[in-house]
Amino acid sequence: MKKVKGSVCAPEGFLSSGISCGLKRSGKKDLAIIFSKVPATASGLFTTNSVKAAPVIVTSKQIKSGIARAIIVNSGSANCCTGAKGLKDAEKMIELTASALKIAKKRVLVSSTGSIGKPLPIKKIANGIKKASGLLSKDSKGAAQAILTTDTRTKEIAVKISIGKNTVTIGGMAKGSGMINPKMATMLSFVTTDAKIKPALLRKLLTFAVNNSFNMTTVDRDRSTNDMVLVLANGLSGIEIKEGSSVYKKFAEALQYVCTHLAKEIARDGEGATKLIEVKVQGAKTGADARRAAKIIVGSNLFKAAVFGEDPNWGRVMAALGYSGTFVDPSKVSVSIGKSKLVSRGKGVKFNSKAKQELKKKEVKFLVDLRLGKGSATAWGCDLTYDYVKINAKYRT
Amino acid sequence: MKKVKGSVCAPEGFLSSGISCGLKRSGKKDLAIIFSKVPATASGLFTTNSVKAAPVIVTSKQIKSGIARAIIVNSGSANCCTGAKGLKDAEKMIELTASALKIAKKRVLVSSTGSIGKPLPIKKIANGIKKASGLLSKDSKGAAQAILTTDTRTKEIAVKISIGKNTVTIGGMAKGSGMINPKMATMLSFVTTDAKIKPALLRKLLTFAVNNSFNMTTVDRDRSTNDMVLVLANGLSGIEIKEGSSVYKKFAEALQYVCTHLAKEIARDGEGATKLIEVKVQGAKTGADARRAAKIIVGSNLFKAAVFGEDPNWGRVMAALGYSGTFVDPSKVSVSIGKSKLVSRGKGVKFNSKAKQELKKKEVKFLVDLRLGKGSATAWGCDLTYDYVKINAKYRT
Repeated sequence: MKKVKGSVCAPEGFLSSGISCGLKRSGKKDLAIIFSKVPATASGLFTTNSVKAAPVIVTSKQIKSGIARAIIVNSGSANCCTGAKGLKDAEKMIELTASALKIAKKRVLVSSTGSIGKPLPIKKIANGIKKASGLLSKDSKGAAQAILTTDTRTKEIAVKISIGKNTVTIGGMAKGSGMINPKMATMLSFVTTDAKIKPALLRKLLTFAVNNSFNMTTVDRDRSTNDMVLVLANGLSGIEIKEGSSVYKKFAEALQYVCTHLAKEIARDGEGATKLIEVKVQGAKTGADARRAAKIIVGSNLFKAAVFGEDPNWGRVMAALGYSGTFVDPSKVSVSIGKSKLVSRGKGVKFNSKAKQELKKKEVKFLVDLRLGKGSATAWGCDLTYDYVKINAKYRT
Repeated sequence: MKKVKGSVCAPEGFLSSGISCGLKRSGKKDLAIIFSKVPATASGLFTTNSVKAAPVIVTSKQIKSGIARAIIVNSGSANCCTGAKGLKDAEKMIELTASALKIAKKRVLVSSTGSIGKPLPIKKIANGIKKASGLLSKDSKGAAQAILTTDTRTKEIAVKISIGKNTVTIGGMAKGSGMINPKMATMLSFVTTDAKIKPALLRKLLTFAVNNSFNMTTVDRDRSTNDMVLVLANGLSGIEIKEGSSVYKKFAEALQYVCTHLAKEIARDGEGATKLIEVKVQGAKTGADARRAAKIIVGSNLFKAAVFGEDPNWGRVMAALGYSGTFVDPSKVSVSIGKSKLVSRGKGVKFNSKAKQELKKKEVKFLVDLRLGKGSATAWGCDLTYDYVKINAKYRT
């Protein structure tokens, strides 16, 4: 696997564009199209929040066919809690995009992010869709910018894998967790590949990759109404991914790598964050136990504040582990940061200045060993800072 | 029911004392004894964190007899993750207290709060126990101070109920959620009454009262290793509480009132808090559904930061409701603050300046109506502020 330039346009046959149509007061880009020259196998995963935004409801239905050619995305408004008009607006966005790109309506997916409760200014969007569909190119920068809200930077990645003389490319972009005007941290991610793959297998691979990447990431334990991960596979590399084949493992690893990269980028760019935190739990009775513990620890406000304060406060790790619901024998637990052990057999050990040095880094890695079994999992988050409070308190509805 | 002065010493036959024995660097009081002149029915509820502090383990066993006469409490050290020495120290505290008060060891309960992982300086505590047991009096102020960590004030209450010509008194004190030196917000609460009551019934009433008070309170969703609520009923009022009797309901209400008062005091004094937040959920399919939704909403970082910013950000209420796991039909939900409606049938309504005025108050009350059934519940929390981050980031281990 090799990292290459670009993101969703890196695989064969994908184009994108990103423009401003006036949804953001700042005048920044707010409308993106991702387009495949040929029909692509499509799969998606959506928020489990029972208050779902209109685009989540509409795209969940659209994607059932397993085939798509275009994704239309707006930022600046989540189109959530907008009632019947919201659903109509989401469908209108599909209709307008299909018409501008001269493709069938059923081949278009729609996605939104931004403030909850604001109706979409559909006329501005209609003009925007016309403009954006005329600007499609192999450059993904504009689209990557247009899906952001208060993210401080774009999140893009692409990788190539070699299959004999051929190559398969996977590219992805994501946005997540800024929030000056918006009211919910929303996470969107779009992944493309020129591999050929059946819908059911694509869904299986996506589910696995997302469970170990986006679903292991938390900024504030507040799950959005708009979360969406979409993947399009257009087959133009000529390589088919079949279960059990030699290519299968390579492709699954590459997809996991892309999703993990984007998930970590979201955590790193979490609201007000100064550090990316990684918590690995190993030695758990089961994988599920490890996942639960890792995610609870990395999401603990007290733990996150300690990391912001660069304090190796292992008591908070032990406490979060204890209330995580994971089976724990406290007298067996060890906790380390980098190579410095903080807890051995459930008791604190005298740690040296190296532990404090580890906390000064931009990426802080904790390892928690439960010494009970073989379950392991890694979760990502960020520190809790004054700026998190500022970003989320200073906005006025 | 009438509110009266004092707390744990207000009921007949209870004495207390609080002194400094040198556990806190500040020199503030750090050791308390609560004592009943006669054996009292005792019941306790403890943290469900699987990493439990030594006093939680020891007192859970001690209380199985259903009878106790004294509670010894220290602040400044949680005696948690302290291994075999920690258990021995907790037992030693019992032994020393029993000896100083000339009562049986099996009649003493022990409780600790403070930093995780620090061994107890047992010599200081031994001297302290001698001193404190000589200072027992009807004044509860010293004990109320001695159980605090970084709380900004004591939390005390007492109520009287009339039963014919007699009266039954219930008093309680609590600490919770400050944290400059400590590493986990810990919650301790001690309730006394001169009612006569069987252990099983006392446990039933305590469980009910705690489920609707302390267990509906959250400051940061981090559950402590040391949480403990203990109640002692010494029977000296001569009034017996029996299930189904006319007195039963009065007593249960009074106990609920005492626990709710202390729980709200803890939320109000949450780390860095400027406001007490109350979220009532009604119209849920079940009571459990209402409890879950109320507690998830009041614990949402995004919601708490919005309240700090005095922003009627109902999108965050809807989103938290949606991920709470409670059954919701978004199109039926209404959300109000004070008397101002923010959401009607799942959509935002234009709210006037009254909504913003409500948010300027020190106590902010949200009502969420699901319009599905009769389940209702109230939860309490506090806003998320710069000072929360400061308190929890600035401490150095």
